[in-house]
Amino acid sequence: MPATPYLRVDGARLWRNIDRTAARAAAAGVALRPHVKTHKSPEIARMQRRAGAAGITVATIGEAEVFVEHGCDDILIAYPVWVDDASALRLRDLAGKARLAIGVDSIQGAGRAGLFLGDTDVEALVEVDSGQHRSGAAAGDAGAVAAAAQRAGLRVRGVFTFPGHSYAVDGPGRAAADEARTLREAAGSLRAAGIEPTVISGGSTPSLEHTDTDVVTELRPGVYVFGDAQQWELGTMQPDDIALTCRSTVISHAGGRLVLDAGSKALGADRAAFSSGFGRLLEHPDARLVLLAEHHVVADLGGAPLPPLGSQVDVVPNHVCSAVNLTDTLHVEESGNLWAWSVAARGRND
Amino acid sequence: MPATPYLRVDGARLWRNIDRTAARAAAAGVALRPHVKTHKSPEIARMQRRAGAAGITVATIGEAEVFVEHGCDDILIAYPVWVDDASALRLRDLAGKARLAIGVDSIQGAGRAGLFLGDTDVEALVEVDSGQHRSGAAAGDAGAVAAAAQRAGLRVRGVFTFPGHSYAVDGPGRAAADEARTLREAAGSLRAAGIEPTVISGGSTPSLEHTDTDVVTELRPGVYVFGDAQQWELGTMQPDDIALTCRSTVISHAGGRLVLDAGSKALGADRAAFSSGFGRLLEHPDARLVLLAEHHVVADLGGAPLPPLGSQVDVVPNHVCSAVNLTDTLHVEESGNLWAWSVAARGRND
Repeated sequence: MPATPYLRVDGARLWRNIDRTAARAAAAGVALRPHVKTHKSPEIARMQRRAGAAGITVATIGEAEVFVEHGCDDILIAYPVWVDDASALRLRDLAGKARLAIGVDSIQGAGRAGLFLGDTDVEALVEVDSGQHRSGAAAGDAGAVAAAAQRAGLRVRGVFTFPGHSYAVDGPGRAAADEARTLREAAGSLRAAGIEPTVISGGSTPSLEHTDTDVVTELRPGVYVFGDAQQWELGTMQPDDIALTCRSTVISHAGGRLVLDAGSKALGADRAAFSSGFGRLLEHPDARLVLLAEHHVVADLGGAPLPPLGSQVDVVPNHVCSAVNLTDTLHVEESGNLWAWSVAARGRND
Repeated sequence: MPATPYLRVDGARLWRNIDRTAARAAAAGVALRPHVKTHKSPEIARMQRRAGAAGITVATIGEAEVFVEHGCDDILIAYPVWVDDASALRLRDLAGKARLAIGVDSIQGAGRAGLFLGDTDVEALVEVDSGQHRSGAAAGDAGAVAAAAQRAGLRVRGVFTFPGHSYAVDGPGRAAADEARTLREAAGSLRAAGIEPTVISGGSTPSLEHTDTDVVTELRPGVYVFGDAQQWELGTMQPDDIALTCRSTVISHAGGRLVLDAGSKALGADRAAFSSGFGRLLEHPDARLVLLAEHHVVADLGGAPLPPLGSQVDVVPNHVCSAVNLTDTLHVEESGNLWAWSVAARGRND
């Protein structure tokens, strides 16, 4: 077995999560374009495609390069890419190997993308802000951004948003409603500018069951493949859906608490406002992870007997995308077999 | 230039930080054994040794393996290592190549370490808890743990603590006082058990100037080489000491705010209770980083003019150890020259 801490994937749960979300999209008659930033693994992307995904979503050019190298042929970079000489060369190279679209969220960014890429097949989707207030144009400005892209020579595929404010108590339903309203307005803004959107793209794992599939034509969830403590605590995935844990060793009982050799360098340090702590223990649902250091996580078991020194415990990271990005290898277990997958796009923020 | 986001090291500031702390330790007549988990880079460890460090500190066997491979010959694994068949083999191999010590914090752990390593030159230091409440025995139990290690065949070098509760407003002075009291008691506990500690080890970057060098014989700070937003906001390092930033591109002005292409996958998601946000901007000290996503950080500049789209901005991570562990390469700049160092021990949690 690998030395702890390591990330362990439950193969059966992974397949089940992939199939369930694919079936949901198919039943709703919308395309599924999963965000692969969660797993960064070509093997899992291939499983998603085999289950019916129309293509994949990535966040960076670097991620796109890795997945194209591993055979992905239809990629959306769902990010307002700022194009310069160096990134234009990379995007042109990608466009020669795969169907490629990028995000734009400003007239200036769209015009610049067109300047560098207007003579290629790279398409643009206008990102709009549906309430997370991260990036994205206002919905009413989407038509102007799309028109700037089109004037600069880019074919405009449509609009997208990430309803990331679904990550809150009572967030999923509210964020999905905001998403539907925003995307409808943005699509209208494109039409008013004379551009018919062929794709209206949304979705996030927490809001997935609330997504208005009369509005969106494409879903881009990521986390659903593995689940994590955030999904568990939001109630959007159940503990027995969770397909990835950090297998850890009990290294101390200092202070009468459980001290594990997982820490922020294995789990990530994400902690949402609604989180109960720094993750959860799969087999000890009442435990609270009260202290996180780089190589320690301390669990309060509320007086329950502590697992012995040297025993192994499964930690559920708060945010699985962060945990996966910290390792080069996922150790997959199914039916007693153990094998390794490469997190091939780890660290590709570029 | 590398594609953003990337970690940029200011070489002149790095040398200055290394020299200043080395001089402080020398002036106080104590050994410096820097924790290399901050930089994970053999080049920087070599600079620390050349500046007078007595050896290095690491957190994991995996880190020790990388640094031994790169020529380090004196290593403390400042962690209560749980020894098993596999880790014993690795520790025995390391002990053949370098002077090696490990932490123990329980009678059971010490006995077990001795069982596997009692016939080697591996030494033990007893970890004690000085107030962070992470790992570490109670000071009064240190003698019993040391005696168990000695009975099992390990030579006991002494005691150590990490006063990690220095990471709080008014923490540095208080933590240093706790550290001195705890280490004095722990050393007394060893002596009462008939074991004379030759090393009494402490130190953390925030508490460094308060450390009682009449008590400790060795300092193990890590962050001082680079500094970060935590040190800046605690007031324990000044902005012009900060030697590492995440160079980022302005990719959006959505909502009238500054959106940068650095995010939690480049900066880490650490956010202490005292932090003003998700990091700081070196050239915009009044800005607050109000939203962090995997590939976005959103800055509120309080009405000040926004740097233009496509321009580059230096983000100071909250916790530099986390940021460094996310990349394979540090881009070092000095006197107009740019070169790359490998983060050779990145991800070595094992």
